[in-house]
Amino acid sequence: MDLHILDHRLRVTSISKNGLVNFTHPLIKLLFLRNRTRCKFFSLTETPENYTVVLDEEGFKELQPSEHLQVESSTWLPLNVVSNGNASSSSQAVGVTKIAKSVIAPLAQQHVSVFMLSTYQTDYILVREKDMSVVISTLEEEFSIYKEVGGESVPVHSQDVFNGLQKNAIQPTVHPVLIPQNQFCVMSLDPDTLPSIATTLIDVLFYSSRFPADLLFTSSSGELWRMVRIGGHPLGFDECGIVAQISQPLADSDISAYYISTFSFDHALVPEEDIVSVTDMLQHQRKDPATS
Amino acid sequence: MDLHILDHRLRVTSISKNGLVNFTHPLIKLLFLRNRTRCKFFSLTETPENYTVVLDEEGFKELQPSEHLQVESSTWLPLNVVSNGNASSSSQAVGVTKIAKSVIAPLAQQHVSVFMLSTYQTDYILVREKDMSVVISTLEEEFSIYKEVGGESVPVHSQDVFNGLQKNAIQPTVHPVLIPQNQFCVMSLDPDTLPSIATTLIDVLFYSSRFPADLLFTSSSGELWRMVRIGGHPLGFDECGIVAQISQPLADSDISAYYISTFSFDHALVPEEDIVSVTDMLQHQRKDPATS
Repeated sequence: MDLHILDHRLRVTSISKNGLVNFTHPLIKLLFLRNRTRCKFFSLTETPENYTVVLDEEGFKELQPSEHLQVESSTWLPLNVVSNGNASSSSQAVGVTKIAKSVIAPLAQQHVSVFMLSTYQTDYILVREKDMSVVISTLEEEFSIYKEVGGESVPVHSQDVFNGLQKNAIQPTVHPVLIPQNQFCVMSLDPDTLPSIATTLIDVLFYSSRFPADLLFTSSSGELWRMVRIGGHPLGFDECGIVAQISQPLADSDISAYYISTFSFDHALVPEEDIVSVTDMLQHQRKDPATS
Repeated sequence: MDLHILDHRLRVTSISKNGLVNFTHPLIKLLFLRNRTRCKFFSLTETPENYTVVLDEEGFKELQPSEHLQVESSTWLPLNVVSNGNASSSSQAVGVTKIAKSVIAPLAQQHVSVFMLSTYQTDYILVREKDMSVVISTLEEEFSIYKEVGGESVPVHSQDVFNGLQKNAIQPTVHPVLIPQNQFCVMSLDPDTLPSIATTLIDVLFYSSRFPADLLFTSSSGELWRMVRIGGHPLGFDECGIVAQISQPLADSDISAYYISTFSFDHALVPEEDIVSVTDMLQHQRKDPATS
């Protein structure tokens, strides 16, 4: 498997609920008028707490300082795992489950904090720029690592000589989880069709307090997903092993999962059909953390 | 011919060029998400000077006070002329030309200031609420006048007894005109198709300094129009006879014209094929005002 360090320097920000209207102008540009900005990576996630916006430095310039805007101080670089046809796997699972053992667990063991952005197509594992040498050292045994530079894939190797990697046992805090009843669809949209649903999306994002009941999006697979929200209070950005804690048992059971970090909490999406066993799994963890 | 006083109480406002970004949120709602507001009348005109927004009181509530927002103090009521099948006319002209002698000239003679909004379909003649009794007295000889109230057309008659109307001679200031080279298209859009061009319109209105050259709109008639901008300095809202001054000679020559008032200047659109004779006409006026 290949691991690519993508050519985007990212910032993680939060816009308050009340503050979104002040950012209507730049956000509409970043969402719908991509040719008017140099922004090449943009993610917007709405949760009850806030709006989490993850975007590259070019996009970040569009956001004016404001009491409504919080900015995490690091620069984050996105990692992406690409199958190179060499690895075979019997796993049918999609999402972060596929990389739980090869990426998530090792990084947690090396105390590297990750910020996850799963998408329909792939998972972006964001790591802090300052952690990159540890990331490379940690993962180069399992992966061929490349850095994307100006469209080219440049092989990279660790600069440091380790006397073996410390495999620290993960004894992370077991965070409370919340499993709402909401059903989720995960969809992909061709960028060319985005204009045709612009007013609908603008309406939902900027002008409504709840997703309209009559809004029909067809999910080709018909799959529904359920959410596991992780964290009783905002998690911060320094704790490691949170993703590992949930993705390990999911990987053991070959259960697909998307994972979306936000400014306050983390969120795992699992197939509706698996929510009972996932719930059992998580209850088990919280009764006896030592066995997880 | 019937004259309808429409059931909208309108405000005339101006947003500065630099200030538009602050109004992105309410303007997008008013333009594209009509079911989220009670606003039933909305007009946005961009000129080099500013953005003129004419809207009803419900829409006006959406605009927050700002140093970038100027508001003319009156409430304006829109008049609309509707053919009732009784009047025959040999005139082929469209737009304000059709009502030049029946509405524009008489109101000017009675010192009633008008604010014109021509559209593809019809012309809205805005008059101040405080002038309405004079308007009714002036026009009821020529028109059956109705007030729209809750969807019903209620006949109205003048309350005042005039000893004949004073027919004041119009001796207005002859304002300088500017005739730019720009060619204009006048188009009508079915409201149902508005979402499909939303991102294009949003782009043009909020994010570009000039209309994109590659933006293709098909004009079914292929007609092109030229503009006559009236006023060397902002006209204000009290002077009467400005519209009359240009629409009279146009009516005499049966030349179509759309007329759009804005916060600063007035604008007449005439067919490209008539611009030479219109230019001559206006030059003639400015050499010898007494003959116009």
